[in-house]
Amino acid sequence: MTASVAEAGETGETGQTGGTRDTGTPQDLTDRFLEVRAMTEQLAQPLSAEDQTVQSMPDVSPTKWHRAHTTWFFETFLLGEHQPGYTPVDPAYAYLFNSYYEAVGPRHARPERGLLSRPGIDEIAAYREKVDDSMVGFLGRDLHPVAGRLVTLGLNHEQQHQELLLMDIKHVLGANPTEPAYRPACPQPAAAAAASKTATPPEWIEHPGGIVAMGHEGEGEDGAFAFDNETPVHDTLLTPFAIRPTLVTCGEWLAFVADDGYERPELWMSDGWGTVRTQGWDAPEYWRQCGDGTWKVHTLTGTRPVDPAEPVCHVSWYEADAYARWAGCRLPTEAEWETVATSRSPARARSVAGLDIGDLTGDGRGLHPRAPGDTDADPEQWTGAVWQWTASSYGPYPGFQPAAGAVGEYNGKFMVNQQALRGGACVTPAGHTRLTYRNFFYPSSRWPFCGLRLAVDR
Amino acid sequence: MTASVAEAGETGETGQTGGTRDTGTPQDLTDRFLEVRAMTEQLAQPLSAEDQTVQSMPDVSPTKWHRAHTTWFFETFLLGEHQPGYTPVDPAYAYLFNSYYEAVGPRHARPERGLLSRPGIDEIAAYREKVDDSMVGFLGRDLHPVAGRLVTLGLNHEQQHQELLLMDIKHVLGANPTEPAYRPACPQPAAAAAASKTATPPEWIEHPGGIVAMGHEGEGEDGAFAFDNETPVHDTLLTPFAIRPTLVTCGEWLAFVADDGYERPELWMSDGWGTVRTQGWDAPEYWRQCGDGTWKVHTLTGTRPVDPAEPVCHVSWYEADAYARWAGCRLPTEAEWETVATSRSPARARSVAGLDIGDLTGDGRGLHPRAPGDTDADPEQWTGAVWQWTASSYGPYPGFQPAAGAVGEYNGKFMVNQQALRGGACVTPAGHTRLTYRNFFYPSSRWPFCGLRLAVDR
Amino acid sequence: MTASVAEAGETGETGQTGGTRDTGTPQDLTDRFLEVRAMTEQLAQPLSAEDQTVQSMPDVSPTKWHRAHTTWFFETFLLGEHQPGYTPVDPAYAYLFNSYYEAVGPRHARPERGLLSRPGIDEIAAYREKVDDSMVGFLGRDLHPVAGRLVTLGLNHEQQHQELLLMDIKHVLGANPTEPAYRPACPQPAAAAAASKTATPPEWIEHPGGIVAMGHEGEGEDGAFAFDNETPVHDTLLTPFAIRPTLVTCGEWLAFVADDGYERPELWMSDGWGTVRTQGWDAPEYWRQCGDGTWKVHTLTGTRPVDPAEPVCHVSWYEADAYARWAGCRLPTEAEWETVATSRSPARARSVAGLDIGDLTGDGRGLHPRAPGDTDADPEQWTGAVWQWTASSYGPYPGFQPAAGAVGEYNGKFMVNQQALRGGACVTPAGHTRLTYRNFFYPSSRWPFCGLRLAVDR
Amino acid sequence: MTASVAEAGETGETGQTGGTRDTGTPQDLTDRFLEVRAMTEQLAQPLSAEDQTVQSMPDVSPTKWHRAHTTWFFETFLLGEHQPGYTPVDPAYAYLFNSYYEAVGPRHARPERGLLSRPGIDEIAAYREKVDDSMVGFLGRDLHPVAGRLVTLGLNHEQQHQELLLMDIKHVLGANPTEPAYRPACPQPAAAAAASKTATPPEWIEHPGGIVAMGHEGEGEDGAFAFDNETPVHDTLLTPFAIRPTLVTCGEWLAFVADDGYERPELWMSDGWGTVRTQGWDAPEYWRQCGDGTWKVHTLTGTRPVDPAEPVCHVSWYEADAYARWAGCRLPTEAEWETVATSRSPARARSVAGLDIGDLTGDGRGLHPRAPGDTDADPEQWTGAVWQWTASSYGPYPGFQPAAGAVGEYNGKFMVNQQALRGGACVTPAGHTRLTYRNFFYPSSRWPFCGLRLAVDR
Repeated sequence: MTASVAEAGETGETGQTGGTRDTGTPQDLTDRFLEVRAMTEQLAQPLSAEDQTVQSMPDVSPTKWHRAHTTWFFETFLLGEHQPGYTPVDPAYAYLFNSYYEAVGPRHARPERGLLSRPGIDEIAAYREKVDDSMVGFLGRDLHPVAGRLVTLGLNHEQQHQELLLMDIKHVLGANPTEPAYRPACPQPAAAAAASKTATPPEWIEHPGGIVAMGHEGEGEDGAFAFDNETPVHDTLLTPFAIRPTLVTCGEWLAFVADDGYERPELWMSDGWGTVRTQGWDAPEYWRQCGDGTWKVHTLTGTRPVDPAEPVCHVSWYEADAYARWAGCRLPTEAEWETVATSRSPARARSVAGLDIGDLTGDGRGLHPRAPGDTDADPEQWTGAVWQWTASSYGPYPGFQPAAGAVGEYNGKFMVNQQALRGGACVTPAGHTRLTYRNFFYPSSRWPFCGLRLAVDR
Repeated sequence: MTASVAEAGETGETGQTGGTRDTGTPQDLTDRFLEVRAMTEQLAQPLSAEDQTVQSMPDVSPTKWHRAHTTWFFETFLLGEHQPGYTPVDPAYAYLFNSYYEAVGPRHARPERGLLSRPGIDEIAAYREKVDDSMVGFLGRDLHPVAGRLVTLGLNHEQQHQELLLMDIKHVLGANPTEPAYRPACPQPAAAAAASKTATPPEWIEHPGGIVAMGHEGEGEDGAFAFDNETPVHDTLLTPFAIRPTLVTCGEWLAFVADDGYERPELWMSDGWGTVRTQGWDAPEYWRQCGDGTWKVHTLTGTRPVDPAEPVCHVSWYEADAYARWAGCRLPTEAEWETVATSRSPARARSVAGLDIGDLTGDGRGLHPRAPGDTDADPEQWTGAVWQWTASSYGPYPGFQPAAGAVGEYNGKFMVNQQALRGGACVTPAGHTRLTYRNFFYPSSRWPFCGLRLAVDR
Repeated sequence: MTASVAEAGETGETGQTGGTRDTGTPQDLTDRFLEVRAMTEQLAQPLSAEDQTVQSMPDVSPTKWHRAHTTWFFETFLLGEHQPGYTPVDPAYAYLFNSYYEAVGPRHARPERGLLSRPGIDEIAAYREKVDDSMVGFLGRDLHPVAGRLVTLGLNHEQQHQELLLMDIKHVLGANPTEPAYRPACPQPAAAAAASKTATPPEWIEHPGGIVAMGHEGEGEDGAFAFDNETPVHDTLLTPFAIRPTLVTCGEWLAFVADDGYERPELWMSDGWGTVRTQGWDAPEYWRQCGDGTWKVHTLTGTRPVDPAEPVCHVSWYEADAYARWAGCRLPTEAEWETVATSRSPARARSVAGLDIGDLTGDGRGLHPRAPGDTDADPEQWTGAVWQWTASSYGPYPGFQPAAGAVGEYNGKFMVNQQALRGGACVTPAGHTRLTYRNFFYPSSRWPFCGLRLAVDR
Repeated sequence: MTASVAEAGETGETGQTGGTRDTGTPQDLTDRFLEVRAMTEQLAQPLSAEDQTVQSMPDVSPTKWHRAHTTWFFETFLLGEHQPGYTPVDPAYAYLFNSYYEAVGPRHARPERGLLSRPGIDEIAAYREKVDDSMVGFLGRDLHPVAGRLVTLGLNHEQQHQELLLMDIKHVLGANPTEPAYRPACPQPAAAAAASKTATPPEWIEHPGGIVAMGHEGEGEDGAFAFDNETPVHDTLLTPFAIRPTLVTCGEWLAFVADDGYERPELWMSDGWGTVRTQGWDAPEYWRQCGDGTWKVHTLTGTRPVDPAEPVCHVSWYEADAYARWAGCRLPTEAEWETVATSRSPARARSVAGLDIGDLTGDGRGLHPRAPGDTDADPEQWTGAVWQWTASSYGPYPGFQPAAGAVGEYNGKFMVNQQALRGGACVTPAGHTRLTYRNFFYPSSRWPFCGLRLAVDR
């Protein structure tokens, strides 16, 4: 998050709002727009034209597709609908770069995104520039509130694709036998590493249960942004429970592997066990066992030994659930997670103090899960390390209403078959997430940066 | 349910317990055992050896497999574990007729059940007889409480397979271009049919929300039976809502079809829409459109025109959810369903008065969804017509503990990816279901006897 | 077949010609018809209703389907087309029991034959009886020559399905973990077994090459029957070669296995190697390795140890080709095979002395490959033991013309992607095959009774 | 190649022989090497990094893979085996760029070639340069004859990949909804176009049959190159036939389409009909029907209307065979094709006068099938327009011996399941093909530049 936002924060608004808020002057919004858009290009910068073209599985999209699709979002929902007389840069792009908005028309099949060599990365760079120019003009005028909210949605949407871009390129490079790195590793600060060895966290955070409020009040007078799926605020009833103040680590996971965790069906959901057998899983995604029995891991900065002190990452819900059962625990529900996280981070009640953009790509702490000792901003890693699977299936809150129009397809239509994750990951853009944020993936997904923390009934 | 059970009921116990209870004298339990076992054979009786052999899709099991598997359950978990010196009828059966109990050893692959011509139906009949003989001897002795509970579980398990047997044979016969019937149709009582035309149900049942208790207290002193997934009783918090006292009918569904319900992606979950397109769905399972545009339906008693007054049946969760959205409503949650159902059926608070066994196969009311007017026992069809999809994914209640041992695999390991259904269907054995009963299937499943009722937020 | 055939029969030639020809008077043809039809029923007799219903893979058809389909052939092509006023037994059968005749109309999908529990075996028996009755009446009248030829074709067609029935039920029973037998084994005559140990066949049969005639002259004055694909007789040019007078045995195959034949890609065609890896082949179909390293084999008479003296059976073309390469040889071409086979069996020049029907199911020599010593009728096993893969792809002879009408789909439309086999197998009906007979299967097929003999260039 | 070849070159024949032969001095061979290598780079030159990365189906390889694989061939079989002390450029390339040589070791899976973004096109260009440098040094020394033959094989191998590169990139660009062109179209010479309208070819070329010689004598004294599958020269026996002196044109194909050729199963092989239905074929690959019923076609120079005068291209063997049957004809056998082609092109008896390399990419005649009037070099288009499907399955000639060593995997291991094609296509490098050349593809393949000519029995 930037200085200008920090200044805005000093006016007293920051405490309540996210970094993605759309309030303030037109210049503020333009600055914010350009900042987010530049971040995407910065993330793509280390990647060759070839890297940006490959689709390594149907879930993955090519980098250049992410760059184009996020641009198409602004072109379609802002310029196309709110800028009279706007002419699209290329009429074919409406077909190629629509992701899943049925209301907007037919679209190119997702599993075939990797078949498209054209438009190339230079054409897509030009596309981004043209749309950015038009958007800057558009943002300089008096915006209708609906348009303003759509700009903010578009920026949050682009931030989600920034994370997807990193998830996806990690998978693309991981499919290459030569094990290339996305970018070079940076040295870990010795202090942080040392700290991680000495910290002795409390074993459990206890909660007595009772009625609690959860969810986000939505975009209101104060300009806070939230996705529709976080609303409305509502009461829910908790039974007594306890939750761990730390994430499950790779060291703990190694003990699960060593105890035949992947070989014992009684630990697994039936669907999970079927997946283990079909896919041949025996460790988290990106782990490879060496000849001497030790494990190495593919990361965005190359292949290196598994670090027992780090939070485990790239485990599916099936694995997280089986691990919890093995440990005599369970996963927390969304309500439990949100309630405790909020109580432990009072200053940030419903928003997360953003990391500097530089963090994400600049100093090596961001691109793989940070060591537990790296805890100045978030000592219990509620956000910023890995997304955390919950016991809750992803569904609508009581009273949920999807947003109107095509953007109403954003979240609501995925509310079945998926599990909710909470928190945020080291690859989540600074200021994007918050404690009410609801992420979701299929229980078999392993390519998101996802881990877990444990809970128990009391 | 039989006279002897009815008599037991007169002692004052029936009101609190289900037909599957294990209390009473050894003779009572033996009678109950023989009664349930005989029902399975009665259901298989109209089917030829060929009918009993076919598996029409991986989800379906052959009739003779159901007959053998339910027998294997008693042989393995009762005789094998609690009868010293028991010798299995055929050692190969442990492999062939284990369904999914990982703890019991390897097993024959489910999609290959239809490859087994041997053992034939006569050998399976002999297997059933031998195990029944052994069981009668076993039940005549003083049972350890654990064994007693397992017998009751086995009987409830067999009742579930009775319903599965009917679901499955309906699918098998439905895959045959000659459209054979399971058994001949019986004439509908004219009075019931007439009644269905005149009833004017109240439009909505209102509920103010608040904390309510749900779930079953489990098998206790009073001998009531429940599956582990119905426990424990726990409080939950409802927001104000209303629910319909009637099921969605085929007539209403025809309006949905006519309004292009199967052609409009905005009504569907993303996964549901993908399924609609891939599978080419344009109506409920077993509906076929005639040349003149009308619809006929394959039933267990043959093919006949769709009856607009009947509850719609054989729709997937995806379809139920889309229908509810189209109607401006939503599906009820499990908690909402159970709360209202219990309040509307006070006499049956936590159990369902059993239908006479004769109903199921005897008079034609049972084998397909009954007309709405057939409502003496259950005027609002909470049970007895079709299973009702809920908005809730199937998961553990707070504090849920699976049963110990291999039978702990019964329910718990399916608690992801599936949606909960409530109520019961015309093919559910008499006395088997209750208002706390939790059924579950994948959201794409259509071969269960499943329909829906609507709810709305208030 | 025609009047001229009847005359030929009277000249006394019948004794030497194939069992499949229709001889002489209407009564002769009727007798022949009933004899072949009875044989099918005799083959199905040991099988239960369940056995007759199962389809263990798409290539396999249920026994009851074979019984019905061969009946449909007579009903459709004879009664339907040549018997004025004939009414089909059941109009649905035209859809259910058409195998692949596009010209006759739509048909039930082949991989779904195992989904049909109805009609059951009793209905099919009744179907056969009714059609047989009608056919007997039909055959008692003066037949048009075209109809006569179709009857003969139908009988040969039914004989092919008799072999398919045995191939298919062997596969069905082989898919059952309980390893049931089709019928009990009969004791091998000791003399034959002893003979097999002592015979010392000549190593090679040499041929100098040159122009030779091959093929069958077709159905002519002498009444011989042949399929269209065996015609016309034509010259072909051979280069010098030699061929083995014996079949490759299981003992020789064990040496190939022991020499890592299934592990060495250089021995295999590229497509063959891909199949070996994908399917996990490490021995012929139906071989299973025991814990002590020895091999047992599933046969129609049950499971028994592999007999090294027997011809190897149930190997694909890929395996036969790889074996030949490993042995420093190659497979013979069709022309080579036919030329030598004819020269070695002069008395049978273009037809095979039929085995007694009793042989096939009666005395144990027929149902599995006979030992090499069982050689009275055919000391070099050109026919009667296993079909023999050739190096030739199955294609049309120069000047080939398919038969007119729907039966023209019989052979011609399969003339790509398949390899030709020659000879005949122990399960081929007596008198059905001849030295010009061309069988064909995909190079990956293993469920036919197929083996090989070797050839080399000179 | 060898001394004897050098001598042959000095006799003055070189000027007339194929571009693929190695001529004379080391300098000649070096020149030839650099010429062929440069051609590959020239073909890749119009393609972006993105274009060179995409794999549009498993049969297709990315352009950059072709560039690397052909380089790997020289590095492995020449430098690696015949240059003492040679160090591979990158040890990973042995795994990544082996195509199918089992004897050389494990390799990257073919369907995953499109997952490799690294090495990028710049690294591959550097790889090519380094290997070329090493090869130039290697070729400057006295070559062992074996090495000389391998160089020639390597150059012919690279020419095959030049054609594959064009086939593949045509498919890649054809999978893009924006229909990009590989390069701009060049204007057709008006004279040629006019000529095509006026030519009246003789209807049939008659042949009386008899014994003819076919095949290539192999690499001998005269220095001619041939693949092992063209050898040995051998006699074969033809029956009387006639063959068309022209290729089937798009205009003729349109008549086949208009006559419901793709809707009539009686015209098709059974496997072909299955493919038509499964794939939804209704015209050759790359044809698209416009709203007005006319057809356009995707070519390397963009999309344009189908030209009725051009030879039809991109039809599978199934389609070619069905067309021939529809026309009352058949496809010629390999022997028929080679015999007549040789007799019609006496000056070129066993080799093809090479086209200037410039032709291939320079003047627009080469990149799509030329009009029939463009016939100066080959008036009957035996070579140079499209590959021509034959009735012959691809198999070994009598006496065929694969080459020794790993390169023996070149042709022999594909001798099943494929059909032979003869001639050559507009994308075949100049001088690469000859009248004995045997190409082969699966009967369902449509992405090669393949068409047909007709034959009939006499």
